[in-house]
Amino acid sequence: MTFPRVGVIGAGQLARMMAVPANDLGITLVALATSPNDSAAQICNFVVGDYSKIDDVVNFARDCDVVTFEHELIPQPVIRALESSGVRVYPKSDSFIFSQNKIEMRKKMDELGLPNPKWSSFDGGVSEIPFPLIAKTISGGYDGRGVFVIVDNDSLNNLHSSVNAPLLLEEKLAFDYEISVMVARSPHGQASTWSPTLTVQTDGICTSTITPAPDLSPELSVRAQEIALVIAQGIGLVGVMAVEIFVVGEELVINELALRPHNSGHWSIEGSVTSQFEQHLRAILDLPLGSTAMVAPFAVMGNVLGGEKNDLYRPYLHLMARNPALKFHQYGKEVRPGRKIGHVTAIGADLVELREEISHAVDYISGAIDE
Amino acid sequence: MTFPRVGVIGAGQLARMMAVPANDLGITLVALATSPNDSAAQICNFVVGDYSKIDDVVNFARDCDVVTFEHELIPQPVIRALESSGVRVYPKSDSFIFSQNKIEMRKKMDELGLPNPKWSSFDGGVSEIPFPLIAKTISGGYDGRGVFVIVDNDSLNNLHSSVNAPLLLEEKLAFDYEISVMVARSPHGQASTWSPTLTVQTDGICTSTITPAPDLSPELSVRAQEIALVIAQGIGLVGVMAVEIFVVGEELVINELALRPHNSGHWSIEGSVTSQFEQHLRAILDLPLGSTAMVAPFAVMGNVLGGEKNDLYRPYLHLMARNPALKFHQYGKEVRPGRKIGHVTAIGADLVELREEISHAVDYISGAIDE
Repeated sequence: MTFPRVGVIGAGQLARMMAVPANDLGITLVALATSPNDSAAQICNFVVGDYSKIDDVVNFARDCDVVTFEHELIPQPVIRALESSGVRVYPKSDSFIFSQNKIEMRKKMDELGLPNPKWSSFDGGVSEIPFPLIAKTISGGYDGRGVFVIVDNDSLNNLHSSVNAPLLLEEKLAFDYEISVMVARSPHGQASTWSPTLTVQTDGICTSTITPAPDLSPELSVRAQEIALVIAQGIGLVGVMAVEIFVVGEELVINELALRPHNSGHWSIEGSVTSQFEQHLRAILDLPLGSTAMVAPFAVMGNVLGGEKNDLYRPYLHLMARNPALKFHQYGKEVRPGRKIGHVTAIGADLVELREEISHAVDYISGAIDE
Repeated sequence: MTFPRVGVIGAGQLARMMAVPANDLGITLVALATSPNDSAAQICNFVVGDYSKIDDVVNFARDCDVVTFEHELIPQPVIRALESSGVRVYPKSDSFIFSQNKIEMRKKMDELGLPNPKWSSFDGGVSEIPFPLIAKTISGGYDGRGVFVIVDNDSLNNLHSSVNAPLLLEEKLAFDYEISVMVARSPHGQASTWSPTLTVQTDGICTSTITPAPDLSPELSVRAQEIALVIAQGIGLVGVMAVEIFVVGEELVINELALRPHNSGHWSIEGSVTSQFEQHLRAILDLPLGSTAMVAPFAVMGNVLGGEKNDLYRPYLHLMARNPALKFHQYGKEVRPGRKIGHVTAIGADLVELREEISHAVDYISGAIDE
């Protein structure tokens, strides 16, 4: 048997969902977990180790044909040590940096001639960007963490002091909505996108998605996918990447990159011939990419956030009876308020109904509504 | 957390494919395996034990909320011992017998007024059924094993002597084709069917399926599903069952029952909103059943049988490039000639193209063709 062994650094829900197509394709997946209780460790092969320690990661990778990531927290020196040890690592450190460092990302977008907001790096002093503005920590932020709306220079310098590191400043755009384009690219250079997804945010956290983004014109849809393909090639992407884009009238402005399977691509498990998780595996193994065609006109996904209820099983009785077409995904995580603990997807032609059903389902599971 | 723990007796590919929806639903699945190399044991939690030993099975079941089967080989006394120990076991022994004993099955079909072929049990002497006839061992046969075409009484008595047990004799029907109806039923009594599937057999082994069965009239399709529902209720089914049916002109004649997820339902993983594996879990957990609607006009599945080639990974390069919509399922089994080691599915609207692609893919993987 020549089936490869893939190591994933991290054992959260993204690694958990990567295990499914790995099993189907006969590929051995092993996760580097922080604990046997991690989401993916509950259901696939794993090794416990510290992703910030070179020895742990190099030992973990020794038997793997290729190593990949499910989060951005692994330090660059660890990735580079892995690469020096001769392990195939995708995305490469030179690409992954654009997922880890927002200043490097902004520079690269400028270099590629792609639409950035006005931006500058800030290390104290007076802002070049007019207020109100968005200040971001350069690394480590997600789900609204590390992102601040700043109204004056005093607040900015206070933030800078408390963070004690340079900040990225960006103009605060009055955008109409935000989309995400998932793109995959293999070492071979084959690349493909899925239809752009509308991401609906609440308090900086993505709560639901609609694919294809319903208000996006065909022209903007094509342009958004072109942007994702240009970035994928420009940074030498291998794997899948989410390109988050603000839609401002007829303009598109790049918000963030995430070089990994992404919440905005979960819909693809049921909604596309090839899910983002299978595509990521195909890409890092340099296999031909799969079809990204949709199997229904619309796919709506809702994140289940931890709420009052601890029992996530009992809601099945009501919800499955109410709608036999709902698809549930539990991450096996302990319930904590606001934490993403699962998601629900529905596909079909009636977007109004799909949105209602998903909204109802996530509110019922989390306990916000009783019936 | 109140998520249930499901024990599956057997760790072949059916248990392996059951692990996927279990993970999605947050249900813990544990398989009783004969070895850590078993198909399912490679990718999910398992215990090694002997399914024919009461102690092994009762110990295995102790921590499970419900126990189910992926094959028919577990002896009735073991199932009954499990039930006496207070474990919820689905299907129940009283139902499972119809999957294990072909004489009991024929009697039950007669009792339910459903269409049997002419049949009799045979324990030596002269056959009541005219020759040529079909003789079957009463238990344990599958994939053409335990099924014999017999042309005269001497051959029949020879077979009887060598088997050294009663046989089931059936008239040899000149059927047009064979279909399978998958049906699910919960303890609650909710039941649902999928569209009937054409099963294409080669040397007694199912080599491919087409869903819906393309030549079946709407009237026969409804009647076939009604038969499956009558059987499900009549035997008190809990779980999924395949009802294999011969189509003879405008008549339907029941061939076999299998009270478990079945090869003829593999298409439902990609082709239906709810796969047979998820539906089986919903049914045995008495959860509301999922939608059995198809997500495309046709689903074609081809079994990959072991051939000359041992390398099942390398064919991906050619096949994925040729057709980015093919869905591969590897069972992690060692290649042996004629053994089912995986399957390939494609869904879409062009049946001619789907059949060609699946036929090409299985021939290419197994090594029967080179390009």
